[in-house]
Amino acid sequence: MDLSLEHEQFSGDSVVASLDALARFGGATDGSVTRVAWSGELFDAYRWTGDRMRELGLAVEIDPAGNLLGRWEVGKGKPLLVGSHLDSVPSGGHLDGVLGVVAAVHAVALLKERGYEPPRPVWIIAFMDEEGARFDTALFGSRAFAGDDLSGLGDRSDAAGVTLREAMAGAGYDFDRVADAARADEVGAYLELHIEQGPVLDHEHLEIGVVTSIVGLRGFRVRMRGQANHAGTTPMRLRRDAFIGAARVALALREEACHRETVTANIGKVTVAPGGANVVPGLADFTIDARATTSTELREIEEFIRVTVARVAEEERLDVDLEPTFALDPLQLAPEIVDAVERAARTQMAAVRRMPSGAGHDAQVIGRHVPAGMLFIPSLKGISHSPDEETLPQHVELGVCVLAQTITEMLA
Amino acid sequence: MDLSLEHEQFSGDSVVASLDALARFGGATDGSVTRVAWSGELFDAYRWTGDRMRELGLAVEIDPAGNLLGRWEVGKGKPLLVGSHLDSVPSGGHLDGVLGVVAAVHAVALLKERGYEPPRPVWIIAFMDEEGARFDTALFGSRAFAGDDLSGLGDRSDAAGVTLREAMAGAGYDFDRVADAARADEVGAYLELHIEQGPVLDHEHLEIGVVTSIVGLRGFRVRMRGQANHAGTTPMRLRRDAFIGAARVALALREEACHRETVTANIGKVTVAPGGANVVPGLADFTIDARATTSTELREIEEFIRVTVARVAEEERLDVDLEPTFALDPLQLAPEIVDAVERAARTQMAAVRRMPSGAGHDAQVIGRHVPAGMLFIPSLKGISHSPDEETLPQHVELGVCVLAQTITEMLA
Repeated sequence: MDLSLEHEQFSGDSVVASLDALARFGGATDGSVTRVAWSGELFDAYRWTGDRMRELGLAVEIDPAGNLLGRWEVGKGKPLLVGSHLDSVPSGGHLDGVLGVVAAVHAVALLKERGYEPPRPVWIIAFMDEEGARFDTALFGSRAFAGDDLSGLGDRSDAAGVTLREAMAGAGYDFDRVADAARADEVGAYLELHIEQGPVLDHEHLEIGVVTSIVGLRGFRVRMRGQANHAGTTPMRLRRDAFIGAARVALALREEACHRETVTANIGKVTVAPGGANVVPGLADFTIDARATTSTELREIEEFIRVTVARVAEEERLDVDLEPTFALDPLQLAPEIVDAVERAARTQMAAVRRMPSGAGHDAQVIGRHVPAGMLFIPSLKGISHSPDEETLPQHVELGVCVLAQTITEMLA
Repeated sequence: MDLSLEHEQFSGDSVVASLDALARFGGATDGSVTRVAWSGELFDAYRWTGDRMRELGLAVEIDPAGNLLGRWEVGKGKPLLVGSHLDSVPSGGHLDGVLGVVAAVHAVALLKERGYEPPRPVWIIAFMDEEGARFDTALFGSRAFAGDDLSGLGDRSDAAGVTLREAMAGAGYDFDRVADAARADEVGAYLELHIEQGPVLDHEHLEIGVVTSIVGLRGFRVRMRGQANHAGTTPMRLRRDAFIGAARVALALREEACHRETVTANIGKVTVAPGGANVVPGLADFTIDARATTSTELREIEEFIRVTVARVAEEERLDVDLEPTFALDPLQLAPEIVDAVERAARTQMAAVRRMPSGAGHDAQVIGRHVPAGMLFIPSLKGISHSPDEETLPQHVELGVCVLAQTITEMLA
């Protein structure tokens, strides 16, 4: 089925209207959206989206892990799962995650409108807590859906001291039932549309990114300890300045990442103590976020981090702890879905390129269990996790058409 | 008058007992002392010290700027002012400042005991708020005593939102009367004993530092602004990472200071925003504290800072504000007092060296109006502004004897 003709007739206005409607839940006057996991704002967004799903005739439920599911029960065999997430980072944008769920709803609406009859069921999903901003439990819903053991996460607490278990209970959910959400083996494939959250498509004036892989990530917390001391009376050569250690690691890591095409490295969270202008820093506590698209490069950058942190600490006479905090292996997306996405994009006459995803996504979790694919539409200037996150309406419209087209390609 | 014989008979036990007594006011179980400006703990310390002064027959008062003054009204002419301060930084040590006041009290006691009759009055002073930890109003009492215009400081507030004016009123003082504390022109000279707060004497196994100059200081607040963005999706070459800017400034400044014998530089306070592990830092907000013992070197390091911050910002495509926050010119101490201190130290058979002070002191303010001198005793490992701040009892004892001896040298 070729939807390219329909593209001429399809207006993205209704999609933009849906995005605007959802942006009200947790929206602030500066254009930012704050809709963290298990919050009232998130469940408001669930209700609104559930109503749209019901209007399309889908069977709506929220599973024990807080995933919103709308099932188009049609045809035979394992369903094609399409979706993303509705939670946001604090003061985030109105597209990250939301677009993938809204696009799935409008793609199903478009397919139904055009009289398309899927040979297998199509399920729409909004995964709970992709961002992990509140409890440091990123990809919670997709991990539960995939059957990962999450039983150790219940006591993680948010900034107000509320635990995940308590927040779930407050919303009417039971942390001890999360394992019941595992049902990845019921689905046949997964497809996700997302904004790129990077500047590549915008910079190259392209419309659709066909995602070939999702980067692997290694997260670390580094604590370098020197000696806090008086900044005027301690001779330079006798100092053990922990911030100097952090600065050297930051520059070494930046240089190494710049020399490798598909590696990124970031030091994003930095605390220096005691924190007096006239006190030599005795402690530097910082994070490292390193990513690569292949396991080999990820191993190499991880080794570089270990060697560099140890060398700098020794040269600066600092004590150091290097604590791994997060590890996610890179995922190659299913070649047959990559091909299907690209075919669909070309059918829709989109300007297209293949590219890796530098961000983690629910597809990275689900894709370890079933064949998965993703497509990107441009982020203006690459800005994301910010009220300035924006995408042109025509790219939103095209994204919905390519998503619908890909669904037909995958089910053909 | 040679007190060297008395040194044999003088025991420092009573001095250590006084230091221990004062450490109770604001003292915590970890050995730290928190006694900030205008606090109840500070006035408790004033009462205790005032009682000791009265026992010696001194006339005790607290002036309108909160300086505690004990006057030994004897002889004729302008008095010799001897002292330091009783306030501390938060979680500071039990010697910084306190020692200079306690030593002055015990030196006067020793002189009286030995029947010494000063030809001119000797005044003991504890200056209010040398540290400036609470209201960012360092050297408040000595500046008021010197007649500096402090009328703009009343609305500065502490971390709890209390203004200096309110804190003074709460303690029974009137901010609008601070100018009445100006009386530097009544005194003939100033002498201050202090712990070194640096490692030089301890490192070189010396007992007394004869201070020749006090470093000048230039303080800056630097705000570098780039673009907060996703740490996984933004290619390295397209980032505008504000923390990288801060790191480069820190390393350049450290290298420059290491190449100059009498210059120090410190970045002690650093905030990175938004502060997510997976977000490229859009803002780095940090302090620079640069010091030098001569005006020429101070000008040169200030110029280096301006040039380096601008160059790094341009190369990293960051916006930058460089805001001067504090400026204090270096002070050469009065040569005749430097000689008197050294003579006194040698009379007391002390192992001695001349040295600059890397820390600012009340002497730096008073010394612009009247001839001033300082002497240091060792800080173990150079540690200060910390519960680990310590000095051997025999050095405390020797310090009191050298201080008393210096008083007789200066009045001879």
